Amino acid sequence: MSPAHRATAAELCKWMAAAGATAHVDVAGNVVGRYPSARPDAATLIVGSHYDTVRNAGKYDGRLGILAGIVAVEELRRRDVALPFHLDVVGFSEEEGVRFSAPYLGSAAMAGRFDPDMLKRRDTTGQSLGDVLRERGGTAASIAGLARRDKLVGYVEVHIEQGPVLLHENLPVGVVTAIAGFARRRVSVRGVAGHAGAVPMTLRHDAAAGAAEIVSMVERRCSQVPGLMGTVGQLQVPGGAINVIPALCELSLDIRSDNAGELEEALRDIAARIEAIAARRGVSVEIEKVAELPPVLCTPRLRDALGRAVARQGLAVRSLVSGPGHDAVMFDGVTDVGMLFVRCGNGGISHSPLETISAADADMGVRVLLDFLTTYEVRP
Amino acid sequence: MSPAHRATAAELCKWMAAAGATAHVDVAGNVVGRYPSARPDAATLIVGSHYDTVRNAGKYDGRLGILAGIVAVEELRRRDVALPFHLDVVGFSEEEGVRFSAPYLGSAAMAGRFDPDMLKRRDTTGQSLGDVLRERGGTAASIAGLARRDKLVGYVEVHIEQGPVLLHENLPVGVVTAIAGFARRRVSVRGVAGHAGAVPMTLRHDAAAGAAEIVSMVERRCSQVPGLMGTVGQLQVPGGAINVIPALCELSLDIRSDNAGELEEALRDIAARIEAIAARRGVSVEIEKVAELPPVLCTPRLRDALGRAVARQGLAVRSLVSGPGHDAVMFDGVTDVGMLFVRCGNGGISHSPLETISAADADMGVRVLLDFLTTYEVRP
Repeated sequence: MSPAHRATAAELCKWMAAAGATAHVDVAGNVVGRYPSARPDAATLIVGSHYDTVRNAGKYDGRLGILAGIVAVEELRRRDVALPFHLDVVGFSEEEGVRFSAPYLGSAAMAGRFDPDMLKRRDTTGQSLGDVLRERGGTAASIAGLARRDKLVGYVEVHIEQGPVLLHENLPVGVVTAIAGFARRRVSVRGVAGHAGAVPMTLRHDAAAGAAEIVSMVERRCSQVPGLMGTVGQLQVPGGAINVIPALCELSLDIRSDNAGELEEALRDIAARIEAIAARRGVSVEIEKVAELPPVLCTPRLRDALGRAVARQGLAVRSLVSGPGHDAVMFDGVTDVGMLFVRCGNGGISHSPLETISAADADMGVRVLLDFLTTYEVRP
Repeated sequence: MSPAHRATAAELCKWMAAAGATAHVDVAGNVVGRYPSARPDAATLIVGSHYDTVRNAGKYDGRLGILAGIVAVEELRRRDVALPFHLDVVGFSEEEGVRFSAPYLGSAAMAGRFDPDMLKRRDTTGQSLGDVLRERGGTAASIAGLARRDKLVGYVEVHIEQGPVLLHENLPVGVVTAIAGFARRRVSVRGVAGHAGAVPMTLRHDAAAGAAEIVSMVERRCSQVPGLMGTVGQLQVPGGAINVIPALCELSLDIRSDNAGELEEALRDIAARIEAIAARRGVSVEIEKVAELPPVLCTPRLRDALGRAVARQGLAVRSLVSGPGHDAVMFDGVTDVGMLFVRCGNGGISHSPLETISAADADMGVRVLLDFLTTYEVRP
């Protein structure tokens, strides 16, 4: 809702109108452009992504999905295609959660999941989200009123992969099967300090050596199951000295999977293995829960339709899991959900100015989306 | 050279005199008490340790060795024993290196190894060591004059173990074979950052996982060779985030051994294994030298004599290596060097108010020292 953010919304709105959509910006800052069905009573398919970014980010995260929708509308209009559903292209106002430390604000509003408590959240200047929205006539009631009550066909999002899988497999696009669930933990390993020269190896209870074994165990355990990922992003011996055996080592765990059962089993197993490592080494461990979100499965009907559209471009159909979350998460349980990933360059880096995609891959993303839109059969 | 330090020296001087020694404090703050031989032309055996401490330290580190010498003199005087050598009991003024960040100041002076550049070193208040010594009439020349030029029989130090070996083996005393040499390194592991949910395990170049493997390898490698010790006291992912695969992980290495060849071989082997781990993982490593000191071997003649004195108390003779350095290091190459360790309680903790020894073990230390002093045959 900064001047730059509002200018972007206005520009997107203009581009949607230029493409032939009926466009407006809602009170939550979402930009909505409709390519209407010939049948006024038709249900609606939403194609969306977000136009906000993190700081010092790349150009494609979020924006690609909006622009793909706009280009699709332009092409549908050019070909004068009549769809059996209204097509709403949406640029969501806020997915990253930068200003108010809360993600999915725009898509939550449209999915009917906006939590009114969010209005009290303040940015670093002390302004609340409620204040910011009120300037544009937004109230708790008007935000709640954005919840879609019309019949929906589904929600489809084109997004850059933000990872290296498609790059590694030399494929321009892939079909998302699920958005991974995750569990985050903080682990503290406590051993016994000692002089690096005075305690023989056999008599040590070294917290860092225990932590290192945990890091390797997590890596090994998560490498054994496709789709499972385990990351120790934080690791430190607080106040460590070069000649002192560490009494404390702290580490973080981020465990992800598209499979709720496998995620739970991995968590249970990793906790048990941590306990076993600690017992064998004579160190103690504390495991603290930080956060947990279950996986979101993409709807098989949309996955299959997107897969057929990929195949019709003469491409191998690669299914893959999204590690990061997306606006699509908000539509889980509200309507059918599908996602198409487009290959990233530069090793798959994202949230960085180094983020990149090729024009050919972006074009392929739009071709698949158009093929899907013009062939998708609405559920009877 | 603080008032408390000077008061301690004066008190030690009084205790030495009360025990029957001829005592004085030299310009470096060392307290020297002589129990003279009946033969004025005899050589001198030095029994010493330090009376300074680190902050918030224990009571026994250093002091035990001085007090053991004083008690020995008292007992020799009581028994009216004539020794074939002069016995100098020395309380060294500064071993820890706290005030001027330079250890062994007192023993370096007596061993003729005092570096005049040290006089320029300043404490945290800006006072130089030269200023502090000058207040007591000390000059570069008078410090240099403390170097022993008389014939020495050897240097023997009784010291608390500062580790758990004797405690673990249920022995009150042990004979030191060597003071370990050490090599210190800083290792930086550089990988590729990535989103914890977006990069499959097989495509990662995780700096922390690489570092963890190095920590485990060092622990395993150093556990295979008795007397070799390897410690990672510092370990951190700078600025790590819970959901980001680490691009950088830093760790320290402290490798020690009493055997110069084994220390060198371990260093070479560990460096090669680090390179192999890095190559396999597709991460890069830098290894930076921080410090290196070769091991000091105790003189076999003194080791054997101390061992026989231990055996005559009806005890098993346990030989062990000192990880930490001691004043004895300064006398290496100057005269024969021997050390006797006394068991620590509380798991062997030192440099802490939790440091402790039992009266019975201290008594055994003095008994061994006395036995040694009254039986040692000076080299022909």
